[in-house]
Parts: sequence; structure tokens; C-alpha cells
Amino acid sequence: MAKAPVLTPQADDFPRWYQDLINKAELADNGPVRGTMIIRPYGYGLWERMQQEMDARIKAAGAQNAYFPLFIPQSYLTKEAEHVEGFAPELAVVTHGGGKELEEPVVVRPTSETIINASFSKWVQSYRDLPLLINQWANVVRWEMRPRVFLRTTEFLWQEGHTAHATYEDARDYAAYIHKEVYEDFMVNVLGIDVLLGRKTPRERFAGAVNTLTLEGMMGDGKALQMGTSHELGQNFAKAFNTQYLSKDGRQELVWQTSWGSSTRMVGGLIMSHGDDSGLRVPPRLAPVQAVVLAIKDDEAVLAKVREIGDRLSAAGVRVQVDDRTDTPFGRRAVDWELKGVPVRIEVGPRDLENGTAMLARRIPGGKEPVALDALAGLLPTLLEEDQALLLEQSRERRESRTSDVATIEQAVEAATAGGWARIPWADLGEEGEARLAEHSVTVRCLVAEDGSVPGSDDAPGNVAVVARAY
Amino acid sequence: MAKAPVLTPQADDFPRWYQDLINKAELADNGPVRGTMIIRPYGYGLWERMQQEMDARIKAAGAQNAYFPLFIPQSYLTKEAEHVEGFAPELAVVTHGGGKELEEPVVVRPTSETIINASFSKWVQSYRDLPLLINQWANVVRWEMRPRVFLRTTEFLWQEGHTAHATYEDARDYAAYIHKEVYEDFMVNVLGIDVLLGRKTPRERFAGAVNTLTLEGMMGDGKALQMGTSHELGQNFAKAFNTQYLSKDGRQELVWQTSWGSSTRMVGGLIMSHGDDSGLRVPPRLAPVQAVVLAIKDDEAVLAKVREIGDRLSAAGVRVQVDDRTDTPFGRRAVDWELKGVPVRIEVGPRDLENGTAMLARRIPGGKEPVALDALAGLLPTLLEEDQALLLEQSRERRESRTSDVATIEQAVEAATAGGWARIPWADLGEEGEARLAEHSVTVRCLVAEDGSVPGSDDAPGNVAVVARAY
Repeated sequence: MAKAPVLTPQADDFPRWYQDLINKAELADNGPVRGTMIIRPYGYGLWERMQQEMDARIKAAGAQNAYFPLFIPQSYLTKEAEHVEGFAPELAVVTHGGGKELEEPVVVRPTSETIINASFSKWVQSYRDLPLLINQWANVVRWEMRPRVFLRTTEFLWQEGHTAHATYEDARDYAAYIHKEVYEDFMVNVLGIDVLLGRKTPRERFAGAVNTLTLEGMMGDGKALQMGTSHELGQNFAKAFNTQYLSKDGRQELVWQTSWGSSTRMVGGLIMSHGDDSGLRVPPRLAPVQAVVLAIKDDEAVLAKVREIGDRLSAAGVRVQVDDRTDTPFGRRAVDWELKGVPVRIEVGPRDLENGTAMLARRIPGGKEPVALDALAGLLPTLLEEDQALLLEQSRERRESRTSDVATIEQAVEAATAGGWARIPWADLGEEGEARLAEHSVTVRCLVAEDGSVPGSDDAPGNVAVVARAY
Repeated sequence: MAKAPVLTPQADDFPRWYQDLINKAELADNGPVRGTMIIRPYGYGLWERMQQEMDARIKAAGAQNAYFPLFIPQSYLTKEAEHVEGFAPELAVVTHGGGKELEEPVVVRPTSETIINASFSKWVQSYRDLPLLINQWANVVRWEMRPRVFLRTTEFLWQEGHTAHATYEDARDYAAYIHKEVYEDFMVNVLGIDVLLGRKTPRERFAGAVNTLTLEGMMGDGKALQMGTSHELGQNFAKAFNTQYLSKDGRQELVWQTSWGSSTRMVGGLIMSHGDDSGLRVPPRLAPVQAVVLAIKDDEAVLAKVREIGDRLSAAGVRVQVDDRTDTPFGRRAVDWELKGVPVRIEVGPRDLENGTAMLARRIPGGKEPVALDALAGLLPTLLEEDQALLLEQSRERRESRTSDVATIEQAVEAATAGGWARIPWADLGEEGEARLAEHSVTVRCLVAEDGSVPGSDDAPGNVAVVARAY
């Protein structure tokens, strides 16, 4: 009799596979309030590593972290017309505080453009104060009607950058810089996801932006996931909050602004990009645990050896965990680490000790073979880099093989519905065609230029729309 | 004519000095919703360093980070009777979400015992799952009637640890371990504050705890600040949420629990412990910037030299910032760094270069003298450790010189009102005496045992109450 699979196979039901994996790998639970989530230690460990890697890049881009309040006066939200229209349906509103009804209800931040601009308008006085480059790590709330853990949750964790610049060009260039040097670099080189960089159509733009840059990842089922966005806000919020500076030649000028965000949604993207029917596969550069050393049996020599291996790998710069919980059956622990997607398992039992070897199981390419104990510390860093490259390669192959060029809207819908991305000239599609796609739950993920770069305008000649179903 | 002081002198008006410092050193602003605060980049940099240092200690204590929802069903709060009584007056309540009135209002977390226990009751099944050691970095909301930046704010940032154990002893020992090895170690050895460890009286205990351990710091005006607490929760929440485990001998048992927290309030404690009339003084082990290298003049050789010094100090492991903003007057920048409390300023002008020296100004002991450029990198680590020790020594001296032994309640009130701490035998004070102190806004900060250790019970013979006014 065949063993029942640990997870619903991807091919049978991808959304159920996703939910199974999140439960079984102990990544997250649903919270008691609809749409909220509890991020369990292993899931939070993934997010912490994302934060570390992103935070270093954000700081290298010159931005400083700060913290703005969770509560925003309702009146602030209404100052920028498109912004309030975009967010009003998703707001959570506090009407009572300290046992009394509040005079003015306060909104739980869905994003912080408005409250941050209220500060920027005080902090920015002179051209000397520019550029002002701020980032915030925070929770935000957007009431979700169709919640799905990590992908769409009423509360999520994110970073949001907010900047003010003296000129249009400086703001535009900074949004593009973040897009490439922070987001693309992190997603490609750490997450191992071959994201597509592009420009959102007016229909898909952030509420209040004049231009939104996006990074789209292709998931295991061929759908798209927006993994991060970087916005040019023009002077929309500057006008709404009167954020001005005294220029070098003595004139009051409105600032030009950007904002950019990425969230715990990336954890969902990680799962759906790299997961397989046995569980998650975590890219080594991200992995909180790159290698686990398992004691197969409760044996003194074995326990001493796994600890020694752990110390040696740790000294070699590997993030390692020793699993000596021999009161739990070995097979169950091995399946658990497989589910959690730890790249390398090193299994040590009494027979291995006799041979001076350990069994080395690799989660990413798969496979298992004995390795001399003395060779482990020298070998692992190389294997981990191989694994990292393989995940990116698989992600790239998937996107290439499942993206097709099409000529008509019908073909685009067909390709997207079959689980792929379709490329269609934007001149042939247009906003009208985009509306027709929407009837089939297909959206323009982004526009890309003929040469694959990010277009400088919506209607640049040769712009291609990449369309897909999306999470 | 004497120069107007940058800050209101401490001796004139300590609370106003505090507020002046926070404004002028650009640590924080008030938020638009009453009681909320905006933590500006320099203030947030202090908090980030606190997080780093604390997080490393928390992880070393075996706890793992996780994240629980901001929103808690109102019904959860009411499950533990003392807990809801303690927090009900401070709650912020969300009544509307997604454009509709909610069927059950949700509470913005004032602390997470209840929502975390709802998860613990699912996660804990067997003795193998214990101890369960969880920590969370999060924002919490307690509606504040008398807000003061960093000290009492409607929203604040904190870490809250929550643990479940198989036995009373294990829970008790873990709360005590966190109290000493995480909180005391951090506060004494990084913050440089000579905190007093003790036990709260029943009146001052956390709502729902059976024992609360506290760390009390003496501020510059002789008042006390509670800098962190570690609670034994007994089985109160375990009963309320039915958190049980199957013991080794096959019985269902309720778990024993702890919780422990420290917050952005520590930033307020830092300011009030070490600040003086010229601004903040940041202990070097905490300081995001330990040394700043200032170019006095816009001169090519000077600018090259400050960058070179910056690189050399950085290579020597010093957290260094180069200040080459020569379009801002040098004097203003020097005052600004003094306000911000950066331990060491290295000032370089053309004349210094001729002499092969730089002017080295020390914020903590005070004083300024020329130092040979080649000696800087070798000298700084030693000076910084001297500064660190000096701040702790000054904190210790203050607490010793301003603590007195008294015999009566009247004397205790007098000592506290004069700006000091008074020690009085708990047997002579008692809960009745404690109530009388409260009429004079004087509280028992904690009980300590005769030998200065933390007492194992409220009524242990020889217990001394330390009483003071407090923030």
C-alpha cells in the first residue's frame, strides 16, 4: 500500500497544497479575528531573515528607519482624493478609546503616506533637508474580504519607504534605484525568484501615485504574485500636506516624493515559488537553518558526534541546528525538516560512526549519500551555493517556459487560464482590452519595454503588457 | 551677555528639560492622535540598538520570536477576571471594518496574554512541547490620559515574552532568569543604569500575575522609573484558556506560565538617567554612533582626512559617522552632536592637519584635547569603555547617595518628595501604609530582601520596601 502523501499534491489542488504546507510546516495559523494570522516561530524566522537582508540594503540606499503612529486621524486620509478612494473600503476604524467614544474616529493605518507627510511638512524646510529618506518596519491593516495566509491578510507586516526630493528626476531615479538595488537584488539573489520588473498600468497603480513599478513572480501554478512595488508620488501628497522647501535660489517649492513597500506576502511567494509535494524548499542564503544535524538514535557517541558536527559547521559559517530529540521517532523528524525545507540534513547513527561517515540528504536537488565526516565542513558552503543557484534556475525556466507571446485578447485569456503568462503589445490591448481581461479575472501584471527594461511611460512605442491570473 | 542655554536647565524644571531634549535632539515628536508619538530616526536608532542587544539575549535564553495579531476579540480579554479589570479602562476598540459595523468589536492589543494563550492551548499537547518559549516584538495600545513621550504613550513598541512550563518551579526560575540574564544584564552592562531588582507588592502587580519582578531605575531628579517586568502568571491564564499537557505519567495537567516585557519607555529612562544640561549622553555600548568625525571647514584636504579617519575607526570596530556638512556652521553641528549625546567628537580643521592632530571632545566625562591622528584608532576603544564605566558609576552613586533608610511613613513621604528613594521595613509599612503613601503620590517601587536580593515572597521576614515617586 502506498503511503498517504503528507500534503495534498500540487497537481491535485494547488491552493490546498499551499494551506496544507503552511499548517504542516508550522509556518502560520489563522488568527481569531477574520483575516488575521499568527506567524509561528519557523515562519517568523523566515520573515526575520527577510528583514535582515532587506534592512541592510535599505540602509545602504541611504534611508533611515523611523516609526510613525498606528492611528491616523480620519481627516488625514481624506486629504488626497485618489488615496482615500482607494483605501476607504478597507479601513478599520477605532471609535472608542479609554472607555469613551472618541470625538474624531481614528483609522488604523492601511499605509502611512498621510501621517508621514504631516511630519515631512514640518521637517522639510530647506533644500539642505533633502533628500529625506525614511523607512518604517510596521504592521498595517486592510480589511480583507477573501483572506489567505501571507498573501492577503487583514493585518500584515511590511516595510514602507517614504522619501522627499528636490526634483522630479531625483524622485524618479530613487524609486527606480530601490526597485532594482533593494527589491530586485534581494528577490533574485536571496529569495532565488526570477522576478519580472515592470510598470503598472494606470488601472493597477497605487492610489495616489503617478507611476508604480512592480516586481512580479511566477508561482508554481503559473499565476503571478506582486512581490513589491515602488511608487513615484509626484507632488500629490506634497500638495495635500503643503510639503515645501526653500530652494537654493530662495523660492518655496513643493517636494517630489516616492514610497515603496514589501511585506510578509513575500513569505507566501517563497512557498509558492519553491515548494514541492514534500514541502517547502528554502534558498540557503535566506534559510534561518541551512543545515540540520540529526541524531538517529539516543546513543552517547552519536549525541556527542552531532554536537561536534554542529560546532564545526557553525565555525565554518553555516547556520546550523542540532536535532537531538531522540524521544521523537527519527522518521517523523526527517519528514518535518523536509516539510520545513531546510536545504541540508546530516543524519548520524551508530553505523555511520563506525564508517566515519554521515548520511547527507539534500532537499533542493533531492538525493542522499554518505559523506566522510571530515569532509562535511569543507563541502557544505559549496553545496549550499549550488542549491541557491538551482532554485533561481528553476524559477527562471518556469517563467520562460510558461510565458507565451499572443496576438489577441482571447489568446491572452486562454494562456492565463491555462496557468501561464501571456505577452501582448500594449498598443493592441489598451485600457479597453484590459477591462475585458478583467472579466475573466486576468490582469495586466505590468508593462515592459521592447528590450525587456522598465518603460519610462505607459504609452512608449513597443511596450508589451504581461498578463496573467494573480494572487 | 551669557548665551541662552540650549535646554531648560534640569535644576529649573526637569520635565521641561526632558521635553526640550527630546525636541532639540530630534528623538521624537507628538503624533496627531492624542498620546501617540513619532519616533524620529535618531530616537529610533537608539531603540534599534536596544532591540539588537535584547534580542540576542532573549534568543540566548532559548526563546523564539513569533507574531500574534494586533486585533483581539473582546471576549478573549474577559476570560481572565483580574486581567480584564486591569486593562478595560485603557482599551482602544475597533467597531467598524471594511465599511461595516463589526458583529463583535475587536480590541487593539494592550498586551498579548489572551491571544497567545488561545494558541498555546492548541500548540501544547505533551510534556515534549514544554517549555514553550516565545517572544514577540510588537506595538501595543493603552489609552493614556496623561501622555508623556517615551514614558507613557497610547501606542508603544515593546517586546513581550510568553512561556509555558510543566512545573511551577520551572516557570518561577525562568521568570527570574529573564529578570537577571536578559533585563538586568542589558540595563546594567549596556544602558549603564544601576537598576534595582525587586518584587512588586500585590497592589502593584501585573493584572493576572501571581508575582511580578521589576527593575527600577533612579532618574536624574531622584524619581523612579520601572524599566521592565517579569511575571509569574501561575495557572491563571492556563485555567482561563484550558492550556493543558499530557504529562510523562499520562495525566492532563495545566501549564505554568510567565510573561515579561520591556518597551520604548527604556529610551525615556536612558534620557533621564544620563542626560545633562547640554543634552543626552549615550553609553558607548548602546550608541548607534559612538564617534563622529567633523570637518570644520570645506577644504579638500580636511574632507579627505575626515573620511580617512572614518574608515580607520570603522575598521577598528568603532561605530562612526562622518559629518562633512560644511554648508551648516561648525558650531551648530557641534552643539547638535552634543545634544544627541554621541560619546566622542573628532574635529578636524586645516590647522589640525598641519599639526598632524585632531581635536578630541568627550561628551561623557567632558573635556577636549588634541590627539595625534595616528593614535586615534588605537585610543578610541579604550576611551569608550571608560565612558561606559563612568556612566554606570554615576548612576550607582546617584542611587546610593539619594537612598535613605527611614522608620516612619512621614519620613518616607518626605524623602520621596525631596527627590529620593526611601527604604522602610515592609513589616512596618504593610498594605495599609502603602495606601497612605499613595495619597502623596508615593508608591512602593519594590520589595527587596535583607541581603539585597529579590524576595521569594511578599512577607518574608526582613523584606524592605523601597518607596519613591515614579514616572
